[in-house]
Amino acid sequence: MSLDLFAKGLSDPTMRASVLAEAVPYVARFRGKKIVVKAGGHSLTDPKVTEDFISDVFLMHTLGMKPVVVHGGGPQITEWLTKLGLGAEFKNGHRVTDAASLEVTRMVLVGKVNRDIVSGINKHAPVALGISGEDVGLLTVVQRDPELGFVGDITEVNASLIDRLLAEGLIPVVATIGSDRTGQSWNINADLGASALAAAVGAHKLIYLTDVPGIFRDLSNPTSLISQTSPEELEAIIADGSISTGMLPKAEGSLRAVRQGVMSAHIVDGSLPHALLVELLTDAGVGTMISQLKEDNP
Amino acid sequence: MSLDLFAKGLSDPTMRASVLAEAVPYVARFRGKKIVVKAGGHSLTDPKVTEDFISDVFLMHTLGMKPVVVHGGGPQITEWLTKLGLGAEFKNGHRVTDAASLEVTRMVLVGKVNRDIVSGINKHAPVALGISGEDVGLLTVVQRDPELGFVGDITEVNASLIDRLLAEGLIPVVATIGSDRTGQSWNINADLGASALAAAVGAHKLIYLTDVPGIFRDLSNPTSLISQTSPEELEAIIADGSISTGMLPKAEGSLRAVRQGVMSAHIVDGSLPHALLVELLTDAGVGTMISQLKEDNP
Amino acid sequence: MSLDLFAKGLSDPTMRASVLAEAVPYVARFRGKKIVVKAGGHSLTDPKVTEDFISDVFLMHTLGMKPVVVHGGGPQITEWLTKLGLGAEFKNGHRVTDAASLEVTRMVLVGKVNRDIVSGINKHAPVALGISGEDVGLLTVVQRDPELGFVGDITEVNASLIDRLLAEGLIPVVATIGSDRTGQSWNINADLGASALAAAVGAHKLIYLTDVPGIFRDLSNPTSLISQTSPEELEAIIADGSISTGMLPKAEGSLRAVRQGVMSAHIVDGSLPHALLVELLTDAGVGTMISQLKEDNP
Amino acid sequence: MSLDLFAKGLSDPTMRASVLAEAVPYVARFRGKKIVVKAGGHSLTDPKVTEDFISDVFLMHTLGMKPVVVHGGGPQITEWLTKLGLGAEFKNGHRVTDAASLEVTRMVLVGKVNRDIVSGINKHAPVALGISGEDVGLLTVVQRDPELGFVGDITEVNASLIDRLLAEGLIPVVATIGSDRTGQSWNINADLGASALAAAVGAHKLIYLTDVPGIFRDLSNPTSLISQTSPEELEAIIADGSISTGMLPKAEGSLRAVRQGVMSAHIVDGSLPHALLVELLTDAGVGTMISQLKEDNP
Amino acid sequence: MSLDLFAKGLSDPTMRASVLAEAVPYVARFRGKKIVVKAGGHSLTDPKVTEDFISDVFLMHTLGMKPVVVHGGGPQITEWLTKLGLGAEFKNGHRVTDAASLEVTRMVLVGKVNRDIVSGINKHAPVALGISGEDVGLLTVVQRDPELGFVGDITEVNASLIDRLLAEGLIPVVATIGSDRTGQSWNINADLGASALAAAVGAHKLIYLTDVPGIFRDLSNPTSLISQTSPEELEAIIADGSISTGMLPKAEGSLRAVRQGVMSAHIVDGSLPHALLVELLTDAGVGTMISQLKEDNP
Amino acid sequence: MSLDLFAKGLSDPTMRASVLAEAVPYVARFRGKKIVVKAGGHSLTDPKVTEDFISDVFLMHTLGMKPVVVHGGGPQITEWLTKLGLGAEFKNGHRVTDAASLEVTRMVLVGKVNRDIVSGINKHAPVALGISGEDVGLLTVVQRDPELGFVGDITEVNASLIDRLLAEGLIPVVATIGSDRTGQSWNINADLGASALAAAVGAHKLIYLTDVPGIFRDLSNPTSLISQTSPEELEAIIADGSISTGMLPKAEGSLRAVRQGVMSAHIVDGSLPHALLVELLTDAGVGTMISQLKEDNP
Repeated sequence: MSLDLFAKGLSDPTMRASVLAEAVPYVARFRGKKIVVKAGGHSLTDPKVTEDFISDVFLMHTLGMKPVVVHGGGPQITEWLTKLGLGAEFKNGHRVTDAASLEVTRMVLVGKVNRDIVSGINKHAPVALGISGEDVGLLTVVQRDPELGFVGDITEVNASLIDRLLAEGLIPVVATIGSDRTGQSWNINADLGASALAAAVGAHKLIYLTDVPGIFRDLSNPTSLISQTSPEELEAIIADGSISTGMLPKAEGSLRAVRQGVMSAHIVDGSLPHALLVELLTDAGVGTMISQLKEDNP
Repeated sequence: MSLDLFAKGLSDPTMRASVLAEAVPYVARFRGKKIVVKAGGHSLTDPKVTEDFISDVFLMHTLGMKPVVVHGGGPQITEWLTKLGLGAEFKNGHRVTDAASLEVTRMVLVGKVNRDIVSGINKHAPVALGISGEDVGLLTVVQRDPELGFVGDITEVNASLIDRLLAEGLIPVVATIGSDRTGQSWNINADLGASALAAAVGAHKLIYLTDVPGIFRDLSNPTSLISQTSPEELEAIIADGSISTGMLPKAEGSLRAVRQGVMSAHIVDGSLPHALLVELLTDAGVGTMISQLKEDNP
Repeated sequence: MSLDLFAKGLSDPTMRASVLAEAVPYVARFRGKKIVVKAGGHSLTDPKVTEDFISDVFLMHTLGMKPVVVHGGGPQITEWLTKLGLGAEFKNGHRVTDAASLEVTRMVLVGKVNRDIVSGINKHAPVALGISGEDVGLLTVVQRDPELGFVGDITEVNASLIDRLLAEGLIPVVATIGSDRTGQSWNINADLGASALAAAVGAHKLIYLTDVPGIFRDLSNPTSLISQTSPEELEAIIADGSISTGMLPKAEGSLRAVRQGVMSAHIVDGSLPHALLVELLTDAGVGTMISQLKEDNP
Repeated sequence: MSLDLFAKGLSDPTMRASVLAEAVPYVARFRGKKIVVKAGGHSLTDPKVTEDFISDVFLMHTLGMKPVVVHGGGPQITEWLTKLGLGAEFKNGHRVTDAASLEVTRMVLVGKVNRDIVSGINKHAPVALGISGEDVGLLTVVQRDPELGFVGDITEVNASLIDRLLAEGLIPVVATIGSDRTGQSWNINADLGASALAAAVGAHKLIYLTDVPGIFRDLSNPTSLISQTSPEELEAIIADGSISTGMLPKAEGSLRAVRQGVMSAHIVDGSLPHALLVELLTDAGVGTMISQLKEDNP
Repeated sequence: MSLDLFAKGLSDPTMRASVLAEAVPYVARFRGKKIVVKAGGHSLTDPKVTEDFISDVFLMHTLGMKPVVVHGGGPQITEWLTKLGLGAEFKNGHRVTDAASLEVTRMVLVGKVNRDIVSGINKHAPVALGISGEDVGLLTVVQRDPELGFVGDITEVNASLIDRLLAEGLIPVVATIGSDRTGQSWNINADLGASALAAAVGAHKLIYLTDVPGIFRDLSNPTSLISQTSPEELEAIIADGSISTGMLPKAEGSLRAVRQGVMSAHIVDGSLPHALLVELLTDAGVGTMISQLKEDNP
Repeated sequence: MSLDLFAKGLSDPTMRASVLAEAVPYVARFRGKKIVVKAGGHSLTDPKVTEDFISDVFLMHTLGMKPVVVHGGGPQITEWLTKLGLGAEFKNGHRVTDAASLEVTRMVLVGKVNRDIVSGINKHAPVALGISGEDVGLLTVVQRDPELGFVGDITEVNASLIDRLLAEGLIPVVATIGSDRTGQSWNINADLGASALAAAVGAHKLIYLTDVPGIFRDLSNPTSLISQTSPEELEAIIADGSISTGMLPKAEGSLRAVRQGVMSAHIVDGSLPHALLVELLTDAGVGTMISQLKEDNP
């Protein structure tokens, strides 16, 4: 049956009612749970993917979950650096960030990508609040590596800000710019930022939306997708060096989050229709799931 | 397309996700709203109808609405009176209630019908609490008519009990037995009880689930179903005498509730699949809707 | 001096004032304390005893204590089973309960005995709320013994419901019907139900009102009433087999409650005038008291 | 029957229980009500009267009322002025107060009489808090009459302090020393202070404990005691000049309090045993009651 | 005495103590009051002025006031538009804003100017939270004039967001980008945005920090500074056309705010040392004050 | 520079602003902290010292600290005992207190010294509440030594009273009269009372204002003032006997408070201008500081 025919069926209220009656209780197990969703900058370049993502986040909120959105913005930053005649250089997957490019990075992340997500959600209902890691000391950092310039590693998360916003019924949308004690801003890898936030707020799930199906045991073998793994196994796979550069911070972020109490971390292809919702609607899950207990995790 | 094919389609998580993404925002407009649902005793004799009803009430709760259930129990009372060798007599649609039949009526309503609904809901999650109008002075009554015996008219509703239970996240399930200042119990027409409760708690909607499609302009003409009407028109129709005895208390209850601030009252055929949910999922509504404003009511 | 002469004296306000000034501070030591009172079905067949009991419970509430009422209903259940031509069979003091008699048991307990107590209290002031162990998952059970049919043993108590009702200034009146995860109802021994509730809510006292003076060391010797004992001694007496069948669940209930932190359990003859109040007004107590510390318990 | 024989009867717990069961519901109508009790300095010179008074106030608290104590201290002030070789002069019933006698007045009222009442209550349970009208701006005053020196008339009452203390479950005991905007202290007539406090906190009752039976229509005729009167009648009696100097501020205080919404004011002989409690235990009341409605006031 | 000598004096703790003892009570009259401070983009180009401004805002917070910061960013926007090869065009004091320049405007205001203020405050203590008018529907707008492009006029302010942040002890820093129902962003004149916010949150004061001494009666006469005026007079002066283009929105913003209940609006030269604090420390005020009552305003 | 010239400088709002901007953040580190200040009776005999003290306490409150005032009253008590022809006798630094002198002591402390401080503070704003250790069981004592008569040692502190008053935004002013279980009052050494209170409420600092510069290592050597010491060292100095009688209870009080968790105790010369504020405005502190950690204490 095609999705079109299906959609036609749904125009009948009785059928809509049947679907709701079956599906809602299924996702109701996540009611009141904090779920950190990290959307990559690549996903946010496709309007349809962005719209699905925003509509799914809002639906999670409507169904009583407590989503926290963390976003990247790599392609967008590169685009504006180029417009301004500034180059983009990377080392080990991290953008080398001098003062000029930090300024642009912050403007693009906080003043553009973040804003677009916030406005998109607020079109449904005014519940999204955009914040940066600089707000109220949310993300405190130290320099990661002098060679990378203004790239920071998180040393402290002010989780209470997120908790207070969630308690007010809001959806925090977080740009991963941090600050140090001197008030200096720092760029933070959004994958690691999402992981640190998920651990600090005691999230139930951490979901990475990316543009590949998940982690592969063998990068050259498309049938080797790992659908579920434990932190121990994942650590071994990382040590093997069989994880791609782009996937590495997601893998490490998943590992840290689960080790610090997050029930499960998920790496999912965000370009699938309603990828986020589908993840929540399936027992087996889609993409790769990292969790403490292989069998029993909801 | 048949419902079967449709249901098959739903086994695909992506399709389920699409339905949710479309339907949930639609019903989200009732989030936080109090909705009084009156289920007739006849509906509750059919296990499938009962199950749909209970599942729909629980879904309303899951989606953040505040349902309050009021139930009747006519057939069940008659059944037990018969078992006990006691007769059932009616005058103007009200059961003539002597001391012996009052005792049985109370036992059946409070100790059986109410319990079955409560247990049914609590199978989903422990959120239902059965109460009688005698609890904490919920429904205070005076005698309606000496010829009817222990049949009472409500003079006062202790709405704060319902509000406190709703604030605790519970679903109150109300048996319409009331009491007077001397502690004597009285039987109350459940349709009028639901109406008085809806008005007293400031409900957004009052929905009567019954076993006919709604109010007909001409009882002998099945195409004369009134889909929407104003209190003024309804009053005229009642005065015409063109409403059946069984429908009369629902019509009067709707009238009173809307006059006292309830946004709309609905009379719906509870035997349709997920009738309650369908009512909430359609703009036009099903059955008969009584509301102040003909066009603009959600 | 006769009680009549005495009562005459009380018509003088100065004398009433003297009594109050002396007695109230005495019972004030129980202010804010939760006290579970279990009234047997036998007591509730005598109108004068019932009235005294209800008035004493309401007085406890007026004086700032937090009474929780648990009731049985044996004679009333038997009466209605008989009316309906159903027999009553017992094994080891437990009613053998098939589906038909469970339905009647539930109707009588929840729809009659519970209601009568609630209405009686609410005549004083609208503060009583009748609940069943099925409400909001209050009492979860498993089958006790296949031979007994629908007789359940409590495995879990949702104490927070009771605590929230007490915090609202209400008097919960509990019928000991429980449920399991499938929504099936079960009959529960009210003595054991009262004990489980007392332990779960952290009651200060558990008082059984029955129709004998207490526990006797030697059933054939009416002067061998035990006025105070420890859990260890009581356990030995139970092991001796010297406790009557009807007293056994009260003895076991007392033992469990005290072992789980209730300060004292009391078995008192409910047919004495204001038996409940007298228990609270005397240091020595009446009937049998089971407590951890023999001397020092208030 | 003598009180002795009666007291003997009370040693029987059953009799005690009967009294409680009858009397407590009677006074329960004042549960949660604020009752301002003014005790005259004369009453507080007799240890037995003081003890009864303190025990009655504590009992009111135990029974859930919210007593506020206001006290005078005339004889005590005079005693200490004499010890210190300072004279006492009166004009129109007000003590002429120069700087030296104000200092002594304040020391005696706040540091002695107030303390004795507070300690007396706290012997029962630590719930009394002594305050002066200077605390947290409770009583703001202006000079009454230059000839009287530091005697003030209340212009403003900070009722919220009293309300907060009552909400904490405390018994405020108030010495009627006030202050003005410059921080200067002033002596205030305690009868008028009690009246102003009662009006400002929205008291249910204002009770003056004094050393005469009440207001007489004809001072020379001991049978002319007025048991109940309206503000209008009382105003006429005051205008007649037939009220004694000592009674005048109580009469005026009663008038003002009732006119400002206090349900009833009472002038009672505090030397009778448990006079305060007796007043609360009788429908007719003792002494003189001033109330808006002659028949219906509780 | 020079400021240097003075500062030296201050190094003595006793002298510091004297100053505090005198000055703090003076500003304490604004404790708990909401004060909207609008900082112009010009002021924020001078590091010393910016530092003073930030330190004064933080001091207001430390002293228990509730500052809300609103900022512009004209020079900064022009600078980045220029870097990107986009021009800046103005009509009647409003920037003509096409889609491309709106994007840059938003990036600069939200992602740069706002961030710099937030980071500056958070260097003192982590209490500042940057928000945009798009967050949680803070500022809803309609198009001002098709010729101006994406320039909006505020039609609705969601004051509760600001109130909740203030209640959490935070300092909101607001960039005046608004949105409409379709999620489209709009540029808002920051002076008018500050005025609308001040009125909506019920601010006590609205203070415009600008780069001129205030409003002059005669622009060509530097001695004609108006130190205090009423809304009526100001309206007349505006009608006269004697107010400069740059000052016009501040004058209109002041007028609207005072007309909607703000106690006073102030136009102050932000380049003076600690201009904000000086305004709060002087009775006469500095610059121009617009208030309802000419004499009595604090 | 003289203080006069300095004060003149301060009349310029810009200078005042500079001082505030520098000093307030400095003392802001004590925001929300409880600070117990003990003022000796000697200090309170000098009007200028008293005024400075009161103004400093009020300033602490304005700046968001939570001061608790404890006061003595030795000279004042002696003065009134003399007026009344009663003698004053001391043993080991404690006043020998018979029934007559206890009565005077209580009147002077509670009814005079306490009142003067309360009135002084309330002149600034109505936030002070005078209490005695007898109120709500604040200070429970046992007899110290039969030879001293009614002199008590604290055995229990009802810290919740102080906490509740602080939570209401009030400044408690405490007279150190205590009581025992029988309601008997007792005189308490104010230095030890302040120490017990500081420990019980979890104070951050305990500051003794006295009339000497602090503790000297060698009483005969005015340059041997100890500016900072640890509890261990202080204990040794006390054991040496090199502390004067008047200083002893302050030294012991400091020791006990710091041992029970108070961060630091200070002994400061209260006759210096704004001594209290100066102590809070200097890192080194003035007088003698006793703290756990010699270097790092704020």
